[in-house]
Amino acid sequence: MFSCWISRQYWGFSTPTGRIAHLIRGSLSRTLVLSSQRRTPEFSSFVARTNTCGELRSSHLGQEVTLCGWIQYRRQNIFLVLRDFHGLVQVVIPQEESAASVKKILCEAPVESVVQVSGTVISRPPGQENPKMPTGEIEVKVKTAELLNSCKKLPFEIKDFVKKTEALRLQYRYLDLRSFQMQYNLRLRSQMVMKMREYLCNLHGFVDIETPTLFKRTPGGAKEFVIPSREPGKFYCLPQSPQQFKQLLMVGGLDRYFQVARCYRDEGSRPDRQPEFTQIDIEMSFVDQTGIRSLIEGLLQYSWPNDKDPLVVPFPSMTFVEALASYGTDKPDTRFGMKIIDISDMFRNTEVEFLQDALSKPQGAVKAICISEGAKYLKRKDIESIRKFAADHFNQEVLPVFPKASRNWNTPVAQSILEEQRSGLIRLMEIQEDDVVLLTAGEHKKACSVLGKLRLECADLLEARGLVLRDPALFSFLWVVDFPLFLPKEENPGELESAHHPFTAPHPSDLQLLYTEPEKVRSQHYDLVLNGSEIGGGSIRIHDAELQRYILATLLKEDVKLLSHLLQALGFGAPPHGGIALGLDRLICLVTGAPSIRDVIAFPKSFRGHDLMSSAPESLPPEELKPYHIQVSWPADSEA
Amino acid sequence: MFSCWISRQYWGFSTPTGRIAHLIRGSLSRTLVLSSQRRTPEFSSFVARTNTCGELRSSHLGQEVTLCGWIQYRRQNIFLVLRDFHGLVQVVIPQEESAASVKKILCEAPVESVVQVSGTVISRPPGQENPKMPTGEIEVKVKTAELLNSCKKLPFEIKDFVKKTEALRLQYRYLDLRSFQMQYNLRLRSQMVMKMREYLCNLHGFVDIETPTLFKRTPGGAKEFVIPSREPGKFYCLPQSPQQFKQLLMVGGLDRYFQVARCYRDEGSRPDRQPEFTQIDIEMSFVDQTGIRSLIEGLLQYSWPNDKDPLVVPFPSMTFVEALASYGTDKPDTRFGMKIIDISDMFRNTEVEFLQDALSKPQGAVKAICISEGAKYLKRKDIESIRKFAADHFNQEVLPVFPKASRNWNTPVAQSILEEQRSGLIRLMEIQEDDVVLLTAGEHKKACSVLGKLRLECADLLEARGLVLRDPALFSFLWVVDFPLFLPKEENPGELESAHHPFTAPHPSDLQLLYTEPEKVRSQHYDLVLNGSEIGGGSIRIHDAELQRYILATLLKEDVKLLSHLLQALGFGAPPHGGIALGLDRLICLVTGAPSIRDVIAFPKSFRGHDLMSSAPESLPPEELKPYHIQVSWPADSEA
Repeated sequence: MFSCWISRQYWGFSTPTGRIAHLIRGSLSRTLVLSSQRRTPEFSSFVARTNTCGELRSSHLGQEVTLCGWIQYRRQNIFLVLRDFHGLVQVVIPQEESAASVKKILCEAPVESVVQVSGTVISRPPGQENPKMPTGEIEVKVKTAELLNSCKKLPFEIKDFVKKTEALRLQYRYLDLRSFQMQYNLRLRSQMVMKMREYLCNLHGFVDIETPTLFKRTPGGAKEFVIPSREPGKFYCLPQSPQQFKQLLMVGGLDRYFQVARCYRDEGSRPDRQPEFTQIDIEMSFVDQTGIRSLIEGLLQYSWPNDKDPLVVPFPSMTFVEALASYGTDKPDTRFGMKIIDISDMFRNTEVEFLQDALSKPQGAVKAICISEGAKYLKRKDIESIRKFAADHFNQEVLPVFPKASRNWNTPVAQSILEEQRSGLIRLMEIQEDDVVLLTAGEHKKACSVLGKLRLECADLLEARGLVLRDPALFSFLWVVDFPLFLPKEENPGELESAHHPFTAPHPSDLQLLYTEPEKVRSQHYDLVLNGSEIGGGSIRIHDAELQRYILATLLKEDVKLLSHLLQALGFGAPPHGGIALGLDRLICLVTGAPSIRDVIAFPKSFRGHDLMSSAPESLPPEELKPYHIQVSWPADSEA
Repeated sequence: MFSCWISRQYWGFSTPTGRIAHLIRGSLSRTLVLSSQRRTPEFSSFVARTNTCGELRSSHLGQEVTLCGWIQYRRQNIFLVLRDFHGLVQVVIPQEESAASVKKILCEAPVESVVQVSGTVISRPPGQENPKMPTGEIEVKVKTAELLNSCKKLPFEIKDFVKKTEALRLQYRYLDLRSFQMQYNLRLRSQMVMKMREYLCNLHGFVDIETPTLFKRTPGGAKEFVIPSREPGKFYCLPQSPQQFKQLLMVGGLDRYFQVARCYRDEGSRPDRQPEFTQIDIEMSFVDQTGIRSLIEGLLQYSWPNDKDPLVVPFPSMTFVEALASYGTDKPDTRFGMKIIDISDMFRNTEVEFLQDALSKPQGAVKAICISEGAKYLKRKDIESIRKFAADHFNQEVLPVFPKASRNWNTPVAQSILEEQRSGLIRLMEIQEDDVVLLTAGEHKKACSVLGKLRLECADLLEARGLVLRDPALFSFLWVVDFPLFLPKEENPGELESAHHPFTAPHPSDLQLLYTEPEKVRSQHYDLVLNGSEIGGGSIRIHDAELQRYILATLLKEDVKLLSHLLQALGFGAPPHGGIALGLDRLICLVTGAPSIRDVIAFPKSFRGHDLMSSAPESLPPEELKPYHIQVSWPADSEA
């Protein structure tokens, strides 16, 4: 949001905040320079221009240049501002009679037409410099001009301050891509990925290997797109990740693999998901968790954009149990405090009934979070809506308590709690004047989950009231480790399913529990969390064929025939191995501060999985399905 | 084939040609070093080993090392040869009583088991050095050992000299990948692609942009896989190339795009094609043919492997018309001569009936190729089989003529030709003793095509007889230009179809012909040919919406609605642009000298499009098709 605002300022020249815009634009150039290591890319090699519009400075004075760009706007038929990806430059339209044809071209071409101009870089007359524009000290005195292509009436203006619906932006994506923000996002993405490749290939000897996307169904792969083949009844599937292939590459002795891999997941319309997405997919042999974590920390540090503060490594880490207890989630946003505190001990002898009730049950607990300055920033209706949220979504009672606040709206119950436990609370939770405590009681996991949600809700509320809790320049990475290996199946809690996937190795200390209490086994899975979003996950894999077979067949009750090739491969001298995948779209989204992953993808699909530009997916005539031996089964209601 | 042979020597240690193997293996290391620009990648960072097996030299003497690798073989329970991707090293199994457990591990583990050993690098005893092995001066005296994973009985030995059917190799691809040749091919591929990225991103400011693979049918896209969506009757398609997207990126101002793009083509079972393949996809704005050609020449030169002779640029170029006339094909193998010569003029007054006939028809001509030393190397049955080939495949008579050979098998017709034209032929075709001329007559294009085919057949025959015509170290690049823009439709020659695709711009000199004689219009398409294989192609595109519409609607009679988004985009200030795509699989195949593109792809499909390892594509139960609203239409005969 911040950067949107910046770019709006920049392209529009509408306010005097151009200095910041200048910094941002400057930092884009800086990034471009540094990514190539001491050498600026030659942006004008092989093409008709001699220079980009955005690169011209006083150091170019007197040079004859040829520029190609889009007409951003025209002022009084005297000046033209020309744009390319690199920036804007002012062009002086010749007024002499002898240059009438040049003047005609430049004055008649509609905005967003493409022109090629040649001329001399000159100083702007004293007093006419524009310090808000990187090229603001110079202008180009045009000698010749050519209209390369005229522009019809546009569906919207190519100015960032012109608000457009997302549907309109997606329909005319090729126009939307001309915006500063989209250019910045896509170029930053390309640069970060390039640096990741340098780190992996050139510094650490990884091999970039492409794996197939026409594959077969994986067990439980209900979200995989199917592709009919020309053999009747036979289908390929688009894989959700190259998981099996990367493990097979380890068996094949390609002991450091990576791929910027296209993956597919058919989830219908879930917000901020795309049916196809990209992950930085990595696998190594002879590695442990520490090795993978160091690799990834180095990778992110190396590829981190130069216009951001450098990353500090190693990243902190936290067990799953700890994350749940302190943040109520396995992806804690650690940019701010407000941690969940267990205050059960304070209430062992309470006479408040619902607390007694909670504490008498297994896993029962009393939990609380402290909202700093909550009494100052939150309104009574905010607190009410928070309580309602907890009741509606979690069926959970939440009590606001104001241990020190001068004004408070404590309920009678809260009052009686206060009197008993005030000093304990104040000490344990380090309560300050104006702090509000949200207290709940119940089963440990549920109580933590609800407070974890409320913690984020309150942060949003406080920020909406002007308090800055989460510094937009802060990137808070966190490893979450020691996940459970299995979870009870939702539809049948007596059975187990993999918490992540069935190839995850159990924690070595818990190996024996596999045969006695498998639900207690921790895994060697690890997640990488950034600012409260999961941006990566991976694990040490099972390399023992018998263990893999036991887990698949006995514990998970899967049909091992579907994975017979993998089981067989593990038996032929598979090395110990592990890996990780980083979600590239999400990572770039967080780094650029974009509001949606659709803003870091050149041609994204809409919420409903549609390409609004070309209108895919679309109907096909039955004869085009014939070679694939399929026909449409029209639902009954649509036949009517 | 050459490198296969080399690696067989290397891995097997079976012959005294280790010096060559050493050179090859050495050049792999050299490539690895140079690709990272002055810095060897750290192959052992983040993992349990301290060194790779293959890197140990005398300079490591006395060092304590930890190695992880596969047991290649064991000699008399005294030595073990350990292998990783980097090479082989000899390990000395301790014989002392105190090291009994280490000895047991190393002596009992089956071949191809994975072990981790720690020990000291020591000199081999004098006289026991192995100059055939890069690590042959040293060995590792083991102190501790751990069996990481045992290996079951293998379906084949991991030795390059052990012949395996391709089906077996594909079924156990993860074992096949352990071979030196597959490791070399995949690593070379990764390195070349990395250097291409450096060239494009870091040196020339290209932006790596991912485009969707879930798209819509393109007009005439009969070879596109279809993917049912969850909306009844609506389908995505897997595109054959990112053609539309890259043009739209140009409209969007991303004026230097590239992508290592996965593409899909459903061609059933064509030899040496894969249903999914990879291309280096490039597009630029404000560029002409010369610009694209220079870019690609620079790209290949920069990324060319260091173990090959450097490329000389610019590459030669040839028009389509010239290629057809001299080589009978649009992808001439210019590594050797034997060009097609038009000898019609010599026969204007001939009395030989079939020559008279041919010359009296429009486009009729007499053509010949000269097979140097053909009379010496080819047998009578070779010539007969060549004539039969021409008759069977082209319905074309071919006469062998021996203008100077002492022994010859001239037919009576050839005899009479000879007497009339002997001296002319000898002069025009520079005939030497023992040369054979193959002569044919007929319509220009057909006569050239048949001789073009025979030229390659003869080259194969001569090489099978021991003559070296095509130096395996020679990489002969060639641009073929000035293709026709349209071709008559095969099924209806009165109508036109695009020779390449409908977005190709016409040659500027032929623009007016579009409205009068469109079949005569040349295009701005260019192909890049290497050693007789097309490895790339591209064009300057149409950026004028009206011209594009005229070609699509009026000349090609396509339904423009399918492309309305592209036509609309061209109207909104599309810059002039052009691009190219290089077929990466084919290129790497030629560079590595692999017999098939399946040897440069980690997990290729079989001829019939099957994954022999996982057995994709496979049957799916009807309930898994239900969410996609499709059902299988079983062919009548398979229902029986």
